[in-house]
Amino acid sequence: MRVDGREVDQIREVTIETNYVKHPEGSVLISMGDTKVICTATVEDRVPPFLRGQGKGWIAAEYSMLPRATETRNIRESSKGKVSGRTMEIQRLIGRTLRSVIDLEKLGERTVWIDCDVIQADGGTRTASITGAFVALALALEKVMSKGKIKEWPIRDFLAAISVGVDQKRGEILDLCYVEDAAAKVDMNVVMTGNFEFVELQGTGEEATYSRAQLNKLLDLAETGINALITKQKEALGEIATRIK
Amino acid sequence: MRVDGREVDQIREVTIETNYVKHPEGSVLISMGDTKVICTATVEDRVPPFLRGQGKGWIAAEYSMLPRATETRNIRESSKGKVSGRTMEIQRLIGRTLRSVIDLEKLGERTVWIDCDVIQADGGTRTASITGAFVALALALEKVMSKGKIKEWPIRDFLAAISVGVDQKRGEILDLCYVEDAAAKVDMNVVMTGNFEFVELQGTGEEATYSRAQLNKLLDLAETGINALITKQKEALGEIATRIK
Amino acid sequence: MRVDGREVDQIREVTIETNYVKHPEGSVLISMGDTKVICTATVEDRVPPFLRGQGKGWIAAEYSMLPRATETRNIRESSKGKVSGRTMEIQRLIGRTLRSVIDLEKLGERTVWIDCDVIQADGGTRTASITGAFVALALALEKVMSKGKIKEWPIRDFLAAISVGVDQKRGEILDLCYVEDAAAKVDMNVVMTGNFEFVELQGTGEEATYSRAQLNKLLDLAETGINALITKQKEALGEIATRIK
Amino acid sequence: MRVDGREVDQIREVTIETNYVKHPEGSVLISMGDTKVICTATVEDRVPPFLRGQGKGWIAAEYSMLPRATETRNIRESSKGKVSGRTMEIQRLIGRTLRSVIDLEKLGERTVWIDCDVIQADGGTRTASITGAFVALALALEKVMSKGKIKEWPIRDFLAAISVGVDQKRGEILDLCYVEDAAAKVDMNVVMTGNFEFVELQGTGEEATYSRAQLNKLLDLAETGINALITKQKEALGEIATRIK
Amino acid sequence: MRVDGREVDQIREVTIETNYVKHPEGSVLISMGDTKVICTATVEDRVPPFLRGQGKGWIAAEYSMLPRATETRNIRESSKGKVSGRTMEIQRLIGRTLRSVIDLEKLGERTVWIDCDVIQADGGTRTASITGAFVALALALEKVMSKGKIKEWPIRDFLAAISVGVDQKRGEILDLCYVEDAAAKVDMNVVMTGNFEFVELQGTGEEATYSRAQLNKLLDLAETGINALITKQKEALGEIATRIK
Amino acid sequence: MRVDGREVDQIREVTIETNYVKHPEGSVLISMGDTKVICTATVEDRVPPFLRGQGKGWIAAEYSMLPRATETRNIRESSKGKVSGRTMEIQRLIGRTLRSVIDLEKLGERTVWIDCDVIQADGGTRTASITGAFVALALALEKVMSKGKIKEWPIRDFLAAISVGVDQKRGEILDLCYVEDAAAKVDMNVVMTGNFEFVELQGTGEEATYSRAQLNKLLDLAETGINALITKQKEALGEIATRIK
Repeated sequence: MRVDGREVDQIREVTIETNYVKHPEGSVLISMGDTKVICTATVEDRVPPFLRGQGKGWIAAEYSMLPRATETRNIRESSKGKVSGRTMEIQRLIGRTLRSVIDLEKLGERTVWIDCDVIQADGGTRTASITGAFVALALALEKVMSKGKIKEWPIRDFLAAISVGVDQKRGEILDLCYVEDAAAKVDMNVVMTGNFEFVELQGTGEEATYSRAQLNKLLDLAETGINALITKQKEALGEIATRIK
Repeated sequence: MRVDGREVDQIREVTIETNYVKHPEGSVLISMGDTKVICTATVEDRVPPFLRGQGKGWIAAEYSMLPRATETRNIRESSKGKVSGRTMEIQRLIGRTLRSVIDLEKLGERTVWIDCDVIQADGGTRTASITGAFVALALALEKVMSKGKIKEWPIRDFLAAISVGVDQKRGEILDLCYVEDAAAKVDMNVVMTGNFEFVELQGTGEEATYSRAQLNKLLDLAETGINALITKQKEALGEIATRIK
Repeated sequence: MRVDGREVDQIREVTIETNYVKHPEGSVLISMGDTKVICTATVEDRVPPFLRGQGKGWIAAEYSMLPRATETRNIRESSKGKVSGRTMEIQRLIGRTLRSVIDLEKLGERTVWIDCDVIQADGGTRTASITGAFVALALALEKVMSKGKIKEWPIRDFLAAISVGVDQKRGEILDLCYVEDAAAKVDMNVVMTGNFEFVELQGTGEEATYSRAQLNKLLDLAETGINALITKQKEALGEIATRIK
Repeated sequence: MRVDGREVDQIREVTIETNYVKHPEGSVLISMGDTKVICTATVEDRVPPFLRGQGKGWIAAEYSMLPRATETRNIRESSKGKVSGRTMEIQRLIGRTLRSVIDLEKLGERTVWIDCDVIQADGGTRTASITGAFVALALALEKVMSKGKIKEWPIRDFLAAISVGVDQKRGEILDLCYVEDAAAKVDMNVVMTGNFEFVELQGTGEEATYSRAQLNKLLDLAETGINALITKQKEALGEIATRIK
Repeated sequence: MRVDGREVDQIREVTIETNYVKHPEGSVLISMGDTKVICTATVEDRVPPFLRGQGKGWIAAEYSMLPRATETRNIRESSKGKVSGRTMEIQRLIGRTLRSVIDLEKLGERTVWIDCDVIQADGGTRTASITGAFVALALALEKVMSKGKIKEWPIRDFLAAISVGVDQKRGEILDLCYVEDAAAKVDMNVVMTGNFEFVELQGTGEEATYSRAQLNKLLDLAETGINALITKQKEALGEIATRIK
Repeated sequence: MRVDGREVDQIREVTIETNYVKHPEGSVLISMGDTKVICTATVEDRVPPFLRGQGKGWIAAEYSMLPRATETRNIRESSKGKVSGRTMEIQRLIGRTLRSVIDLEKLGERTVWIDCDVIQADGGTRTASITGAFVALALALEKVMSKGKIKEWPIRDFLAAISVGVDQKRGEILDLCYVEDAAAKVDMNVVMTGNFEFVELQGTGEEATYSRAQLNKLLDLAETGINALITKQKEALGEIATRIK
């Protein structure tokens, strides 16, 4: 049995509370077990300089943790005066994967800013951010479309993310909590569409390696997790979910 | 009548949810109307260099807003690579005023880090931060004391903060929401103890001035507000409140 | 008796030397006892982005100390690569209070940059900066107006600033020198117009509090000080003083 | 046929020139087609703070491009005052993957700094950096060991890296040059040991997705490439190669 | 005749006011025509890390201009968050040249911080800084020696600096004011000891060149200027001057 | 005899390999003994803001060392987040001296970026950078002119740079290697045209001074070195060399 009593192929309890904050066009509070992230989507009627005049939009993402989201307090990146390598990797990942399911031409010359702020962390903050951000993005695009600014629905498919890993004793496991993550030999994040196509696959063995057979077991677990998460996204989106695919 | 239907001497609805986040020694979610701030208190067993070896503790505060806490999205200070003047003023204010009701010798050589993160803003974020941070601080010190690290209770008095201002039409008003704050001729923040002594008084007339008579009316309103807030703090703290004074 | 022999309601010797530096449109060297500040006013024919096209001007201020203005040498903020919270608070205060007595429409689309550089510090550098900067600003606006760029005189009233505080032994005192400031229980800065209206009031009790009765005594002292300072400003400005009010 | 005439499963010409620079403990110039990287390994007799006193060593990596390594000139990161997200991702990847084949206890309390400086870029700079850095690291550890500082050989296995991707017309291809990389639908970097175990797998579909069948073809190609690269590493290392595994 | 009526070999009027600021161990206000610089010397009882434990001292220098020392306002380097290349060159020059006439062993393990702050600029600010800083340094060392901290007088010789240049019409000229400097084909700064030995020679032809014959004429002029400046330094130092050489 | 067996007036072996990197308009690898620098020239069809609309071009230079170009590893300036004073001095020197032999009007409104990256250092990196950069610049301008963008050849003369110094034992010496440079009493860099006119002369005696007689001997040596270097430049440039002068 795992540290919190789950089966190896079982995800933690997931809740997605929509419209959690009043100002943004779209927002959710996503909880995966004790990991809690506020995801907001802000629509801006302009694009970054490299895209101007091309009739295409952009999705940009930022990620941060409250200083005491974790067991020990982290120094704020604003106080340090720079964003860490880890934060940059995560925010690039969130933006890149969301763009893969959006038709940027249909979005038109506008930028959607995704902000993922972790208020409590217990492993899997980057995957929870992607899963929650997708819902906030759909809410925001629905709102913009209802105002007539966008003519055609720009979301091509669902998108969710989950972690899998190799535990010393239990072997391949799904949706690692912090204690499991810290002890894992292999840590892998999988981002998939509703069609079970890969958008991103990142598997790391720090001071360890893994075989192709292990990779295949990890990917099987990931599909199980993605399936469960997309079900939750559909519930959270209600009517809007029917517009996707 | 005011924009949200309140009387000139009426504060907004206040709620203080304790232990809102699981990792910190003390935490609350304070809401004053639509202003919502997560306040956490982290206890560290060391002090800044300038205090080492003096047997005294320190209270340090940091303040931040989520990018979309406001009507339009703000660029993160971590992305800009520096903390704004406004943020610095606010975090210096929070730390300084909390220190005024703490016996730093009784705290011993430890630092309490106060983090105030605004997740939704509608005026009065700095005063809500102080009022909420006081409760988070009391919760954290209770926990540390229960572990025997602190021998004597170090909190000397309650502490709360409220805004008052001069409105073009309604004159002096209490607890300004964002719309009122943006239109006010005079903006004043008052931080007081449970004994109605001043800890900090900051009154600004941007492109306007105010008379001593107006000042007196504003201070009367502030006392009313502070009184109501300290009642809420007592409810939130329950048993712990009886240890203060 | 106070440390330098003054009465509790007596300010230090004040001198304001006009046109101290040759390049700026307006400049003074103000001395309040051993505190000496060079204040310059630079007029630029454009405004910050947020004001463009509105027909209004702006007053912006910067404040700095020479590294050895103080008893021990301070590291330059340029070497540290960032401006401290204290400096930001002071320069925001100087700009904000000067703007309160200027008709920004009459100033037209131009910015006046106020630079306050402390060459010797002995307490009260921010209040001396405001008092001196007002004179430099008036000199600069007179020069610009004499060239016909400004049609109507934009200064609505005099502006001066003074510190007051609560001393352990002597109670409420006016115009604290450094030794008094370091020992004071309460430190308050008051910025007033020639009409004795408040522009800014900032009263802080670090590790102490103060009552409303004490506040009233402090404000009485402040009025005495402001009165004396405005008399000095009038002498320094000579003929130009008659245009104000 | 591919843009440069290669088969889909053919890598570019690879050369590894050892001891390219005279000062470092280990250094190579690696060329993969027109991509050229100077990799150096510097051994320092201390570890970062988080490892002190644990009897373990560390491998840290930095990566940079000369401004005109690319078709258009890039602004130096030293001039911009910060390291980009892309650079951080790459240097974290290089350090992490090298650590996976090193026994850090056998290394003892020392840090090996890996510097990868791209002097000419034509796609695959991060994978060439890893493949070259492994050789520079082995040269450096041999030198340190020959001086008796390290008792047991700390390298557990070979390590090489290669890119694979999905081309619009040719499907899955091995070792993408810049033109192919810019046009690819899917871009994947694979880091493997001499035993064909995975150390890192990063596969990204920007504005595209890929199926599990495609993933399998890409991994087959990657094994072919890794095999060829490790043969080159063995040639470059000569006698030293026999100590690995 | 030159723009201000001087002969080609004539320096501007020089005054050196000692003990201009009250806190530093040594300070002067040096004026060369309209160029005015406050130079202070601060003695600290420790040395930079690279010198610790060697029984030697150090002279470090910093240079800055008030924003409105010049005809148009300069943005503060503290606001820009970095020190310009020009400033760095000048402060390295000041420190290096002062060290050349100091016996650092006799100074002992202490650092003298030289601060040169230009309050009004009219050409030659770096040379005036060196000439003034030498006097501030001598005053500070006299004070430290009188307290018995230094046993032997550490200053080996006088040190002064002057600019020379090639004017389009008048040829070689001494001590250029700003207008001359801006128009000069060749600009040279010469730092010499009381013995007319060179400490530093920096001659630059921006978009121009100069011959060896011209160099010799420039050096002759420089000697004339250095001679006059050292006479002024001796007057300013009075009795202390007799200890040097 | 000198440390490496050379005569006092003998330069090290010099090689200049042209078109060393494939992307830039001009590039060389220059070696002076064990000092090796990659110099590239990039032509951009625009000028910095201060030159816009004047019909003139600009030469800007940047200089850097690989971290392990030296005996001990240097921290990257990109990691430190700022460029050192030494680097700024050198890159200003390279740009300024190259501009002195270029007719900026004939260059037209374009910028040539010179990048000098030291891959191995053994003294004289700044002078080798200038000598190599001149060749890269000539190659780049030839290429731009051959495309018809520039009508008249803009290079007025050759330009090379060499170090000279005063050795404790051997007196005046030419082209110091690192060991000689570290021990020298006087260090001088001389930049001259093909006509033996000075462009820049920088002579420094750190903790030492030098006489006019010594200066003259150093300048004689420098002419010998410059002569040899320009011969090498002519060989490297071949046909192109005949267009210069």
